[in-house]
Amino acid sequence: MSLLSLADAVTKAEAVLIASKTAPEAARSVATALVKAQADGLGGHGLMRLASYAAQTRCGKIDGFATARFTQTAPGGAIIDACNGFAYPAIDLAITRLLDMTTHAGIAAIAITRSGHCGAMGLAVERLADAGLVGIMLANTPAAMAPWGGRRALFGTNPIACSFPRSGKPPVVIDLSLSRVARGHVLAAKQRNEPIPLGWALDKDGQPTNDATAALAGTMQPAGDAKGAALALMVEALAAGLTGSHFAAEASSFLDAEGPPSGTGQLLMALNPAAFGPGIAHIEPLFAAISADGNARLPGDRRLASRQLARSAGIEVNDAWFA
Amino acid sequence: MSLLSLADAVTKAEAVLIASKTAPEAARSVATALVKAQADGLGGHGLMRLASYAAQTRCGKIDGFATARFTQTAPGGAIIDACNGFAYPAIDLAITRLLDMTTHAGIAAIAITRSGHCGAMGLAVERLADAGLVGIMLANTPAAMAPWGGRRALFGTNPIACSFPRSGKPPVVIDLSLSRVARGHVLAAKQRNEPIPLGWALDKDGQPTNDATAALAGTMQPAGDAKGAALALMVEALAAGLTGSHFAAEASSFLDAEGPPSGTGQLLMALNPAAFGPGIAHIEPLFAAISADGNARLPGDRRLASRQLARSAGIEVNDAWFA
Repeated sequence: MSLLSLADAVTKAEAVLIASKTAPEAARSVATALVKAQADGLGGHGLMRLASYAAQTRCGKIDGFATARFTQTAPGGAIIDACNGFAYPAIDLAITRLLDMTTHAGIAAIAITRSGHCGAMGLAVERLADAGLVGIMLANTPAAMAPWGGRRALFGTNPIACSFPRSGKPPVVIDLSLSRVARGHVLAAKQRNEPIPLGWALDKDGQPTNDATAALAGTMQPAGDAKGAALALMVEALAAGLTGSHFAAEASSFLDAEGPPSGTGQLLMALNPAAFGPGIAHIEPLFAAISADGNARLPGDRRLASRQLARSAGIEVNDAWFA
Repeated sequence: MSLLSLADAVTKAEAVLIASKTAPEAARSVATALVKAQADGLGGHGLMRLASYAAQTRCGKIDGFATARFTQTAPGGAIIDACNGFAYPAIDLAITRLLDMTTHAGIAAIAITRSGHCGAMGLAVERLADAGLVGIMLANTPAAMAPWGGRRALFGTNPIACSFPRSGKPPVVIDLSLSRVARGHVLAAKQRNEPIPLGWALDKDGQPTNDATAALAGTMQPAGDAKGAALALMVEALAAGLTGSHFAAEASSFLDAEGPPSGTGQLLMALNPAAFGPGIAHIEPLFAAISADGNARLPGDRRLASRQLARSAGIEVNDAWFA
């Protein structure tokens, strides 16, 4: 392990990608996103992804030289074809365009298709809130969860993120996936040869299991059971169905260099608060009341503390990540 | 109990409201919504609400003579002031305007403020999908749930609804509230002097309880625990914060004739599929795969079966509802 400044970490990650069939602009976008996630303490979407990304560009599963193509379809609507490149440059483009489009249209949404792993979505919607907009983002991911009562993994873990601007304070950012726990916890239990708690996963017949191997052959439990499964359907239909992207059950893994491009989708939305009410000052008492309620905490507080530390002291990195 | 055709049930409900300080157009809108919910088997949002609504118009908590006021703020944005009248006429107006606005703007949203109980939201978004749009609706409700780790009920049960058009089939409609169970189940347990299962509710100190009385003095558990609480915050901030409406903790009950108007808010959104991808035919394989997966079921299947029966055979009504 060594300690790197955020700027140095971006430069190092960029170099790894550029050496692995990736255009400099794309490498910069991806490296920035990974380092920001790492700085926020979101290691799962941080620099540990770098080696897997580089392997995917080297074999062409991700096209490191793709350029995202933007097509505006309506004052509030547009489509970005990520062309099987990285999701991050497509998201950067979407954010830039949403800032423009909402000025006129009040609300705007952009569908991103032929995309892939989009990392910490909270970081994307936060940029919309930094510009004074309410941001919403939905994404589908490779197969992880079944419809309620079903056995086949037709939904990903399908994250939802949302951000709200505040006056003189960092935005409030909500970012969650719809599985009860991340699949990584099941993998870790299997490696340790330990059982998993009932409620994490179902086996291939849709029955609760505490066996990690059976769980990996089955599906993850949705957070909130039937309600979480219904929300996962909503996200799958919006992020993949509406955008014309690969459904979870069709999408290749985000993690390995096997198979065709993942081809998943994202839907980003932004609302100009002025078009819908008295403005962000009216939301503030809600946030203040949460902060004032004992052990409750605003979502994102922990990420901001981690970010602060990373900015001043740098981040610990594993040298193997850049190998 | 007696059996009524849907048309007769609407006429009877309308008459009760008109006799209780409500304008004929508002009475028609409310009666239609209640009967539709009843027909769909959603009794909690059905005709059992009629007496409570009539009591609220008689005392002026709901202004039965209010006219919803529409202000367009942008091609995709508008605000409807329900003027402390019923939510239903405001929602009717929002749906009509969204159909227009999305034709040009691709996506449109309408904030409804100074509103109140909006019943079965699935019925509202379904009308958007009947017109070929993807519909999304969020609402806040009076205080029910605490932020995760907190004690104070700062969020309502905050329902989310979403609808997707299908070619030659009724839309797929998702409609769920974010509490694990409805507060009505706790009330029923208290009346029967029975304990409630752990996991339904927290006491006033934020601790799990199986005592129904302690639960009613505390908060309902969110579906999906911390994730459900985060989603409830998202809905509260969008449906009440953005729209400039009363937050859950400020809103008077939807059920009784005490206090000032509830003043909660709703946010309706509609997306024109053509602006975001290849169209609804691309979503269909997802719906087909769910229907094909053993015991899984598309959300809304049960409602459609109930509706079919109600249309052919009528609905069972309790004469006391119309007293």
